[in-house]
Amino acid sequence: MAPEDSGLILIATAPDRPGLTAAIAGAVSAAGGNILDFEQHVDPYELIYGCRVVIDGRELFDRLETAMNELQLAHEVSWQLHRSTERPRIVIACSSTLHCVGDLLVRSLSDDLPCEVVGVVSDKDAAASLARRMDVPFVHVPVGEMREAQEEAFGAALELLQPDVVVLARYMRILPAWLAEQWEHRMINIHHSTLPAFPGANPRRRAHERGVKIIGATAHYVTAGLDEGPIIAQDAVPVANDTLEALVQRGEDVERTVLARAVRLHLEHRILVFGNRTCVLG
Amino acid sequence: MAPEDSGLILIATAPDRPGLTAAIAGAVSAAGGNILDFEQHVDPYELIYGCRVVIDGRELFDRLETAMNELQLAHEVSWQLHRSTERPRIVIACSSTLHCVGDLLVRSLSDDLPCEVVGVVSDKDAAASLARRMDVPFVHVPVGEMREAQEEAFGAALELLQPDVVVLARYMRILPAWLAEQWEHRMINIHHSTLPAFPGANPRRRAHERGVKIIGATAHYVTAGLDEGPIIAQDAVPVANDTLEALVQRGEDVERTVLARAVRLHLEHRILVFGNRTCVLG
Amino acid sequence: MAPEDSGLILIATAPDRPGLTAAIAGAVSAAGGNILDFEQHVDPYELIYGCRVVIDGRELFDRLETAMNELQLAHEVSWQLHRSTERPRIVIACSSTLHCVGDLLVRSLSDDLPCEVVGVVSDKDAAASLARRMDVPFVHVPVGEMREAQEEAFGAALELLQPDVVVLARYMRILPAWLAEQWEHRMINIHHSTLPAFPGANPRRRAHERGVKIIGATAHYVTAGLDEGPIIAQDAVPVANDTLEALVQRGEDVERTVLARAVRLHLEHRILVFGNRTCVLG
Amino acid sequence: MAPEDSGLILIATAPDRPGLTAAIAGAVSAAGGNILDFEQHVDPYELIYGCRVVIDGRELFDRLETAMNELQLAHEVSWQLHRSTERPRIVIACSSTLHCVGDLLVRSLSDDLPCEVVGVVSDKDAAASLARRMDVPFVHVPVGEMREAQEEAFGAALELLQPDVVVLARYMRILPAWLAEQWEHRMINIHHSTLPAFPGANPRRRAHERGVKIIGATAHYVTAGLDEGPIIAQDAVPVANDTLEALVQRGEDVERTVLARAVRLHLEHRILVFGNRTCVLG
Repeated sequence: MAPEDSGLILIATAPDRPGLTAAIAGAVSAAGGNILDFEQHVDPYELIYGCRVVIDGRELFDRLETAMNELQLAHEVSWQLHRSTERPRIVIACSSTLHCVGDLLVRSLSDDLPCEVVGVVSDKDAAASLARRMDVPFVHVPVGEMREAQEEAFGAALELLQPDVVVLARYMRILPAWLAEQWEHRMINIHHSTLPAFPGANPRRRAHERGVKIIGATAHYVTAGLDEGPIIAQDAVPVANDTLEALVQRGEDVERTVLARAVRLHLEHRILVFGNRTCVLG
Repeated sequence: MAPEDSGLILIATAPDRPGLTAAIAGAVSAAGGNILDFEQHVDPYELIYGCRVVIDGRELFDRLETAMNELQLAHEVSWQLHRSTERPRIVIACSSTLHCVGDLLVRSLSDDLPCEVVGVVSDKDAAASLARRMDVPFVHVPVGEMREAQEEAFGAALELLQPDVVVLARYMRILPAWLAEQWEHRMINIHHSTLPAFPGANPRRRAHERGVKIIGATAHYVTAGLDEGPIIAQDAVPVANDTLEALVQRGEDVERTVLARAVRLHLEHRILVFGNRTCVLG
Repeated sequence: MAPEDSGLILIATAPDRPGLTAAIAGAVSAAGGNILDFEQHVDPYELIYGCRVVIDGRELFDRLETAMNELQLAHEVSWQLHRSTERPRIVIACSSTLHCVGDLLVRSLSDDLPCEVVGVVSDKDAAASLARRMDVPFVHVPVGEMREAQEEAFGAALELLQPDVVVLARYMRILPAWLAEQWEHRMINIHHSTLPAFPGANPRRRAHERGVKIIGATAHYVTAGLDEGPIIAQDAVPVANDTLEALVQRGEDVERTVLARAVRLHLEHRILVFGNRTCVLG
Repeated sequence: MAPEDSGLILIATAPDRPGLTAAIAGAVSAAGGNILDFEQHVDPYELIYGCRVVIDGRELFDRLETAMNELQLAHEVSWQLHRSTERPRIVIACSSTLHCVGDLLVRSLSDDLPCEVVGVVSDKDAAASLARRMDVPFVHVPVGEMREAQEEAFGAALELLQPDVVVLARYMRILPAWLAEQWEHRMINIHHSTLPAFPGANPRRRAHERGVKIIGATAHYVTAGLDEGPIIAQDAVPVANDTLEALVQRGEDVERTVLARAVRLHLEHRILVFGNRTCVLG
C-alpha cells in the first residue's frame, strides 16, 4: 500500500507572515501526525503562503481538525483536510469530439483516475453510445431556440448530478458568467492550444496556418473570461511539416494527457489558486 | 476531405544505386499520378534505399501496379501499394494492466486509429469486461501447467482472428521465437522503459531505484530477442522526486501515447525496417 | 567524412504540378548525380512545391547548374545549388543580454555552426569584451537623439560587413520596415516566448504573471510586422512554481538551443519559405 | 533584487522520525528567520528525511548556526548553511570535445552560472586557446607512459586549484577510485546518453546503430563505478532519421543544457544525495 493510501492531506493558505511553517508543522506534530511530505510556496504577486502536507495515519482526522481550527483563529489560516482514500464525483461535459471524454472514461475504469464519473453531459448526442458502454448516465442538453434555456438546463443537470468537479472535455459552448462563478475552482476546461496563444475558436487550424513548430494544450479552471482562467497544466510537442490532420492528431495526444493530469492534480488536492495563477505542489 | 483520403501510398525499397528516385517518380508520373509527398532515405548501415510516396487518385491503382512490376524487374525494387482508405484488422494482446488496451480500444472507436479491432487476447481475464464494453471478442488463453500449450493456444488465437497487425499492449509473457518470427514486422510491443535502458522485468521499479530523472516508453517490432526488436517510437518526460506510484502514472501516460503513435505509423505505412532499425517517414 | 561534406545541396520550388519530382530527380540523374536524400513537400495554402536534394559529388556543380537552368524554363522552377562545404558569413546583433550571442560565438569556434562570424553589432557596449575575446570585430551603434540615425547606422554596418545571414540574438530594438525588407529571409530573430503567445516586450514577465506551465522560445525570419515573420524553430519546456528568475533561466536555455538550431538549419539550406510559413526539411 | 539574493539557504538531513519539520521550522522561526520556501522529502529506500529552507535575512547566519547546532544534538540532524551570494570556485576538466567546456565558460561570464571558474584541466591541449580567451588558467596534464602518473598529476592539479566543485565536461578518461572518492558529491560528470542506456564508450554511435528515437544526456556525481553515480539531471529529445552527425549535434545541445542545469542545481544547494539517488529540490 502506498503511504498516501492510509493518510491525510492537509492544504493550508494564509497571508504570508513569519512562523507559518513552524506553526502548521507544529500543530501536526502535536496532534501526533508524522509528516511524509511538506511543500510550501509563497505567491510572489499575492503574497499568500500555501502548503500541502501529507500525513501518515488517517485516524488523526478529528484531532487535526481541532488543531487546524485553533490555527485558523490565530493565523488567518484557511485549510482543508482530506482522506487520501476519497473518490470524488466528477461530471464530464463534451460535444462532438470524443477523444478527451473517451480517455477520461477509460481511465476512470482503473485506478489511474481515483474518482467516480457520475454523468456525461453534452449539447450533442455523439457521446451517448460511449457513455452507455461505460455504464455512465448520459444527459443530453441540446441547443434549441434560446441559448439561455440551454445554459439553464446545463446548469441544472450539473446541480442534479452533484459532482465535486466538472470537467469540460471539449465542450464547445461558451459558459455564461454565472455558471463559471458557481463552479469556481471546481470546473476544469481543456483548451487545444498553448494559451495564451490562440484563444477562442479553431486554435489548431490557426496554429497550422501560422506555421508553428510546437503544438500543445492547456487545462485551466474556468472563469467568466473566455480561456483566461488559472492554468493548471500545459504541454507541447514538436511538429514538423505536418498536414493539418496530422497536427490535430498530435495535438489531441497532448490534450488527453494534459487534461487527465490536471484532473488528477485536482483530485489529489495538489493545486493552490492564487489570484489567476495556480501553484501545483508535488 | 484530406488529400490522402482519396489517394494511394507507395512504399518501395531497393539496394541503393543512382537513379532510383528518378525511376520511381518517373514511373508514377508515367502512370498519370500526381505526387503529393515524396520522402526518401538511404540506410547508412544496410545501404538500402527506401521511399514513401503519396499519390493523388486511387483510380490509378492498377496502372501503378503494372508500372511497379516493371521497375521491380529492372531495379530489384520491392514495393507495396496501399489505398489510404484501408482499415486494417488488429488484435490487441494484454495481461492485467489495462491502460494501454483501454486507450487503443477507445481510440479505435473514433478515426484516431483507422483500424478495426477484431479481438482482445489475454492470458488473464482482467480485460474481459473492457472488451465486452467495446463489443470486441475477448479470447482468454490462460497459462496452465504447460507453458508451451499456452503459447500454442495464443498463436492459434491470432491465426484464427487473422489480423493485419498484432499489438502487445502490456502482454506480460515472453513470446517464443517461432511466434515472433511468424509475425515479423507485424507485431508491435510496448516496453515501459526507454530501451535499451531497463530491458526485461520491472523496468519502472528499477528506474525509480536508480533515481532516473526521465521516464519513458518504447514501441518496437517483436523479434526473437527480448526487447531487442527495431524501435518504432520512443518518448520520455521529466520526473522529479516522484513516488514510485507517481512515476508509474507519468510513465503510463507516455506508454499510451507512444504505443498509439507506433500503431498509427504502422497503419499509415510510414515505417521502413532496415535490419534492426526503422526509418519512420513523415 | 560525412557524405554531405563532399556533396551538393539543391533546393527547388515551383508552382505545384504533376511530374516535378520526376523531372528534378531525372535531371540530377541525367547529370550523373547520385541522390543521397530527397525530401519534398507541397504547401497546402500556397500550393507551392518545394524539395531539397542532397547529391553525392561536388564535381557535378556545373553540369547540374546547366540542367537546372533548363528545368527553370520548362517548369517555372526556382532553384539554388550549394556546395556543402560553404562557410557562410554571419553577423550577430545583440543588446545587453549576452547569453545568445555568447552561445553562438562559442559554437562558431567549433564545427557546431559551420560559419564565419564576421561581426557583432550592438546598440549597447555590453558585448564588446565578449567579441574581443572571440577575435570578432565589434561595431557599436548607440542610440542617440534620432532613432532614424541609429537605424541608418545599423543598416550601414550590416552592409559593410556583407554577411550572408544576420542573427538578431536578443537585439532589443524594433527594426524599420526597410531594413526587414532588405534582409528578407536572411535575417533571423529569437523571440523569448512561444509565439504567437506574448509578442512584444517583456514576454517572460508576462508569462510568469499569467502562470504558464511551459516556457519557450521562437526563432523566425524578420519581417516588417513585429514578431510576425515565418517561424523556423520553436521549443518549450515545463516549468513548475519557479520564481521569475528561475523561469528566465529555464527560458534562456531554450533560447540558446532554438536560436542555434534555426541558424544551423538556415546554414544547411533546410528552410523553404512559403508565404508566412516555413517548411523545414530533414 | 531577488529574494534569495539577500538570504540564507539551509539544508538539513536526518534519519526520518516524526517532528523534524516542526523542529527545523521552529528553530528558524525562533532565530527570527522568515521562511520563504520550505521543501521536504523522505527517501523511500534509505528512510532519510531531507529539507531545503530558504530564509530571508542573511544577518541571521550566526543565530541560525547556533540553533542548528542544538538541533543536531537533539535529532541527529546533519546540516549546512549557505549565504545565497556565495560564488563557489569551479574547475572544469575536458578532453578534445569542447562544446561543454565552451558552454560553461561562456555562461560563467554572466550571472547564468554564479561561480568563479578557477581553472580548466585537460589531458589534451584542445581547450588551451578557449581557456586563454576566457582568462582562465589552463593546466595540461597529458598522458605519458604511465597512466597512474597522469592520474596523480590530474589529482594534484585539482588540489592545487582548490575548487568547491569539479565538472567533468567530456573529460574522456576513467577516474581511479581514489580520485572519485576524494571528490565524492563534489565532482559532476556529463555522460552523453540517457543512463543506464549506453554506459561506457561511444554511446552516440551505439544509439544510432540501435535506431533509438530519443537522444539525451545525463549529469551525475562521479563514483568509483563507471557511469553509475547518483543522477542529478537528465533530458532527451526526439530524433527521426538523422545521420549520425545530426544525432550527435542534437545530443550535444542536450548535453550543454543538462550539464549547465546540474552545475547550477549544485551551486544553489538543491541536491540531496540519498545512497545512489539524488533528490532535487525546487
